[in-house]
Amino acid sequence: MSGNSFGTLYCVTSFGESHGPAYGGVVDGCPPGLELSAADIQKELDRRKPGSSRHVTQRRESDTIEILSGVHQGRTTGTAIGFLIRNEDQRSGDYSAIAEKFRPGHADYTYWQKYGVRDPRGGGRASARETMVRVAAGAIAKKWLAERYGVAVRGYLAQLGPKKIALRDWAAVGANPFFAPDAAIVPELEAFMDDLRASGDSCGARVNAVASGVPVGWGEPVYGRLDADLASALMSINAVKGVEIGAGFAAVGQRGSEHGDEMTPQGFLSNNNGGVLGGISTGQDITVSVALKPTSSIRLPRRTIDVHGQPTEVQTTGRHDPCVGIRATPIVEAMLACVLMDHALRHRAQCGDVTPPTPPIAGRVR
Amino acid sequence: MSGNSFGTLYCVTSFGESHGPAYGGVVDGCPPGLELSAADIQKELDRRKPGSSRHVTQRRESDTIEILSGVHQGRTTGTAIGFLIRNEDQRSGDYSAIAEKFRPGHADYTYWQKYGVRDPRGGGRASARETMVRVAAGAIAKKWLAERYGVAVRGYLAQLGPKKIALRDWAAVGANPFFAPDAAIVPELEAFMDDLRASGDSCGARVNAVASGVPVGWGEPVYGRLDADLASALMSINAVKGVEIGAGFAAVGQRGSEHGDEMTPQGFLSNNNGGVLGGISTGQDITVSVALKPTSSIRLPRRTIDVHGQPTEVQTTGRHDPCVGIRATPIVEAMLACVLMDHALRHRAQCGDVTPPTPPIAGRVR
Amino acid sequence: MSGNSFGTLYCVTSFGESHGPAYGGVVDGCPPGLELSAADIQKELDRRKPGSSRHVTQRRESDTIEILSGVHQGRTTGTAIGFLIRNEDQRSGDYSAIAEKFRPGHADYTYWQKYGVRDPRGGGRASARETMVRVAAGAIAKKWLAERYGVAVRGYLAQLGPKKIALRDWAAVGANPFFAPDAAIVPELEAFMDDLRASGDSCGARVNAVASGVPVGWGEPVYGRLDADLASALMSINAVKGVEIGAGFAAVGQRGSEHGDEMTPQGFLSNNNGGVLGGISTGQDITVSVALKPTSSIRLPRRTIDVHGQPTEVQTTGRHDPCVGIRATPIVEAMLACVLMDHALRHRAQCGDVTPPTPPIAGRVR
Amino acid sequence: MSGNSFGTLYCVTSFGESHGPAYGGVVDGCPPGLELSAADIQKELDRRKPGSSRHVTQRRESDTIEILSGVHQGRTTGTAIGFLIRNEDQRSGDYSAIAEKFRPGHADYTYWQKYGVRDPRGGGRASARETMVRVAAGAIAKKWLAERYGVAVRGYLAQLGPKKIALRDWAAVGANPFFAPDAAIVPELEAFMDDLRASGDSCGARVNAVASGVPVGWGEPVYGRLDADLASALMSINAVKGVEIGAGFAAVGQRGSEHGDEMTPQGFLSNNNGGVLGGISTGQDITVSVALKPTSSIRLPRRTIDVHGQPTEVQTTGRHDPCVGIRATPIVEAMLACVLMDHALRHRAQCGDVTPPTPPIAGRVR
Repeated sequence: MSGNSFGTLYCVTSFGESHGPAYGGVVDGCPPGLELSAADIQKELDRRKPGSSRHVTQRRESDTIEILSGVHQGRTTGTAIGFLIRNEDQRSGDYSAIAEKFRPGHADYTYWQKYGVRDPRGGGRASARETMVRVAAGAIAKKWLAERYGVAVRGYLAQLGPKKIALRDWAAVGANPFFAPDAAIVPELEAFMDDLRASGDSCGARVNAVASGVPVGWGEPVYGRLDADLASALMSINAVKGVEIGAGFAAVGQRGSEHGDEMTPQGFLSNNNGGVLGGISTGQDITVSVALKPTSSIRLPRRTIDVHGQPTEVQTTGRHDPCVGIRATPIVEAMLACVLMDHALRHRAQCGDVTPPTPPIAGRVR
Repeated sequence: MSGNSFGTLYCVTSFGESHGPAYGGVVDGCPPGLELSAADIQKELDRRKPGSSRHVTQRRESDTIEILSGVHQGRTTGTAIGFLIRNEDQRSGDYSAIAEKFRPGHADYTYWQKYGVRDPRGGGRASARETMVRVAAGAIAKKWLAERYGVAVRGYLAQLGPKKIALRDWAAVGANPFFAPDAAIVPELEAFMDDLRASGDSCGARVNAVASGVPVGWGEPVYGRLDADLASALMSINAVKGVEIGAGFAAVGQRGSEHGDEMTPQGFLSNNNGGVLGGISTGQDITVSVALKPTSSIRLPRRTIDVHGQPTEVQTTGRHDPCVGIRATPIVEAMLACVLMDHALRHRAQCGDVTPPTPPIAGRVR
Repeated sequence: MSGNSFGTLYCVTSFGESHGPAYGGVVDGCPPGLELSAADIQKELDRRKPGSSRHVTQRRESDTIEILSGVHQGRTTGTAIGFLIRNEDQRSGDYSAIAEKFRPGHADYTYWQKYGVRDPRGGGRASARETMVRVAAGAIAKKWLAERYGVAVRGYLAQLGPKKIALRDWAAVGANPFFAPDAAIVPELEAFMDDLRASGDSCGARVNAVASGVPVGWGEPVYGRLDADLASALMSINAVKGVEIGAGFAAVGQRGSEHGDEMTPQGFLSNNNGGVLGGISTGQDITVSVALKPTSSIRLPRRTIDVHGQPTEVQTTGRHDPCVGIRATPIVEAMLACVLMDHALRHRAQCGDVTPPTPPIAGRVR
Repeated sequence: MSGNSFGTLYCVTSFGESHGPAYGGVVDGCPPGLELSAADIQKELDRRKPGSSRHVTQRRESDTIEILSGVHQGRTTGTAIGFLIRNEDQRSGDYSAIAEKFRPGHADYTYWQKYGVRDPRGGGRASARETMVRVAAGAIAKKWLAERYGVAVRGYLAQLGPKKIALRDWAAVGANPFFAPDAAIVPELEAFMDDLRASGDSCGARVNAVASGVPVGWGEPVYGRLDADLASALMSINAVKGVEIGAGFAAVGQRGSEHGDEMTPQGFLSNNNGGVLGGISTGQDITVSVALKPTSSIRLPRRTIDVHGQPTEVQTTGRHDPCVGIRATPIVEAMLACVLMDHALRHRAQCGDVTPPTPPIAGRVR
């Protein structure tokens, strides 16, 4: 499996750089017969798009997708779905000042040392614009999961820098530029971001996501666990430094009598496991949480070295998100959806003939 | 890639159940010429072995490894290394009481629903005894990484239930049954475990690991990131619910000016990124941390259902670790080593001709 | 995917050397619930076993299989099936004379140059004894294909050196040591082999195999074609130098009006395509044919070089098959079965919801 | 690995349909620093292009490639190389007459039955236009192999229908529309094709290819053999029904004393094995041969069924190659090159530290 592909049966391959002509991808393994149009994907891309509020990068991109194959008369044919998103607002001049320097916390240095060459424009391949490909692939997965299994995949911003955001109202998520699930906290977030931007600094974030309606049985022991594949997919998102399933790190301090989710014929009584036991879905909500580090491209001066190994200082004045977490919710949802779809297909490949000996219990008693 | 294999070039395949005749594995892709004996692997297996203190399961197993192929006259030949570890102390009678019930927090229920059949003895394939295969594969990887690149992979118990354990002394790790890096805290841990055991309950843990000496350049953008593969490998360990690289979830609350590791010709000035930027190693220590949930098999009564879907209660009286985290340190080290070795091979495949344009800087200025 | 594994969903991993302690393998991805015992596999291994007639190697091996995992109470559990076959009749002394020389036509030289080390005993990893693992994995696949889809996989010796053998009677195949589908020709084959053996030389062979009852639809465009995967699996068998599907090389001289198999509601009118069109099964018999080269280990003197690069002569006096093709029929069947099972699983993963818009036509009108 | 990708480290992913907007592909794993321009690829695409003589399809396509990523300032960066080739001369009206019928020998029927839907225009995904992606990927592989190892990959038409074509002159290959290695035979081939075209029928062909300069040691036992991967890659080409390495099916009739290539310090004395022993390259020429079946789309009437399962007759009057083998030479070369590059990378991953204990001998004494 090459580094620019993921998934065993629902397989996504990605290419493109921030200041090259285009991004694109190939989704292989999608079942035939799914109704699919560019609009279905575009609506998800628009959620991630830059320039949608003053709190994110001001790069102007329409992020318009063109489907090139795999769809005929509005339905998937079962063959590879190729798609393309042209870059429109490259201003490579922006980067000339930093082409000779490495930004602390950025992949500049590691690409340079690994490959001996790099495309410094906009981070090249390391740019978070690559996540468009994920969002596009995730849009297809979400649609199939919803239609075939009734699975809903949703996410939200759970923390912005120091500000924790409680899940109060799913409906609020789509109604503010932060994907915050609490309308009341939005003014506070806006003020925080205005101050942050003025300061020239950046901040981290936490994004949570939930997949509801996942049947029991998806995931493969022992290395192909559903949670292992989720961890890989989520950690592969730019800036992610931590991944939790269910109780996550809180499990460290729990007792077994507290953590183990009790079961009744009416359903599970709690969901500390985040919907995965032994690497296999339980039928409960799949709950994941990721930590996103602060953007490394900031206006404040930082000590660094240049491409000749000499000490210098760098300030990044291009167009950057002061908090990449703000636009990360659709990306986390997309990766969650892609992994679930892959495992849905893998499960029915091996266990398509299994009749569960006992009717599955409900995901959770509330 | 099947669910019981991991790795692209250093590829590990595993089989075995807790109460079947044996565990075994196949390590494929190991370079030829590495000196290797059963003793090299046995010493790592012995670190993970049950019955080594009163704080872990009292199952008596020698966990003796037999190398079946891939080694000739004391050196690896480059062909597949097959190995076998016979089970010796199966007492399947222990499990008859729970064969009809699902333990809360255990994979009993999900295997049952996924496959329609299961081997209930000792958790079957879901048993943590499978981690022997990982430790064996990791022993080979550790040896190669040390000899070829001078990489050292070490881990320790960082938290036991509520008790945080600071890294004070690497030498202490091997001298107590907890892998605690602080001799002074051991009596406190022992007392805690004695109380826990008496209570019939279990607890969670945190294990940290560090790989030192990793060169800059290992890892592949964008889905085959070093940290993505680490996340998958670590999350695939039984009971793991969270994975962090570097600052991990602490990055959520950091500013960019704090998180981004500054660089000087003498080295990096901090290591918030945990040795990975853009999915590629920086030359700094690779630092990872995992959360392990409390053991689900506990003596305390818990509400559950039976295989007929009826409500019941379950108490698990077999031999179990009250804290699986206590023996997890060698496992975390092993998975870290396997992923690093895989990426070492992948890197030299693609970039074997690259001369880094600038001499790499030191991992970290101390 | 490592070199010692094949298959995407029905994944086989192999290890072992001719004069090491054992061969073994791991079959991953088998659906749960299949009745399976060691005897089911043993009967196929016995068909390939050495020493069964004077025309094959006189090495005495029982080739007894031990199933180590993945089966509980006589049924597959869906977890990895590990198995072991101990070597019993290693006489490594036999090989001391050739340890320093390379046999023309043998892998001696290439292993030596690739790895810098090799296990010269009995060909080491290059020995055809490895095909036991294939036969074992194929036995499971055959059983599942037969029970789940009614697929029958059968093969026969179609040519022995210069002697072509027509398919006259499937029942004859199991009743002679050559797998010849024509009882009348057996005395001629025996006389030919007796002469060949006396001459100290070896000969090539052709083996054909047929899978009947394969439904339409297995196989994936464009690189994962059913015939592409078959070609790989068959060419990976020791000594195979050519692979044909359907008309094979005869298609070169055909006209389109002759080659293209006409269709009627009652079925196809011919089967030049060998049951595969566009890489996807048609519902007709899958027909394959392989060319096996003559054994390279012969008693006649041959010019060669030694491990120091010096010219020398080599004669191989150990126990060898004078025609590896004689025991190849079960191996070809096994590889055919494994690939079909893999594609059966892959097909239902992606197309499990497809209702064929037209009832499939019969495989072939006879 | 998904069906539209091949290769482990040099990994090619393909998408596109004959009458969709475009074909494209992603080449992942190419080493950084290779000089690469669109012209390097275009020259290979032009060799395969339709409309270049009266003997091939008259579809007018420029087959112009656009490189979208992975190249910066004229050199590969080590990241995924995405490329696009727009279709220009779709005349979908051509296909309306056959949209309701299945062409004998074509993938029409199998796609329809597998997916329940299909894009009937120009064969959709089954069209041989997809081979452009292979040729593009092969152009990059050829360039790298030549520059890094001095490997030359060349092919030629060895048989056109009944007409065998001897390899007399490599220089002739590029100087006639058949890739025939013998200028003298070209008028005969032209006359044959003119007659064939007039008859409304089609014919098969054989294409041979040779890779010279391949070092000893590429290929992995036992399933990842170089010849096994070649067999898969070549059999995956549209219309291929047989694959040979070295002596191929002629080996069936050979004796061991004839087939096994003798060795001297000056080199091998013959090359029956086609440059591969035990799945590993010997340092000799890699020689492969493929059988291509006659085109299934012919003007002559054929019995078939329609999409309702009713008997009917079909004649195909669109623009088709009467012999797909005529344009197949660049495709066979491309697949050979891609597999070799993949194995070059795999070899140095595992065996990058091996110093061959004996200097390799020459490929062949002539």
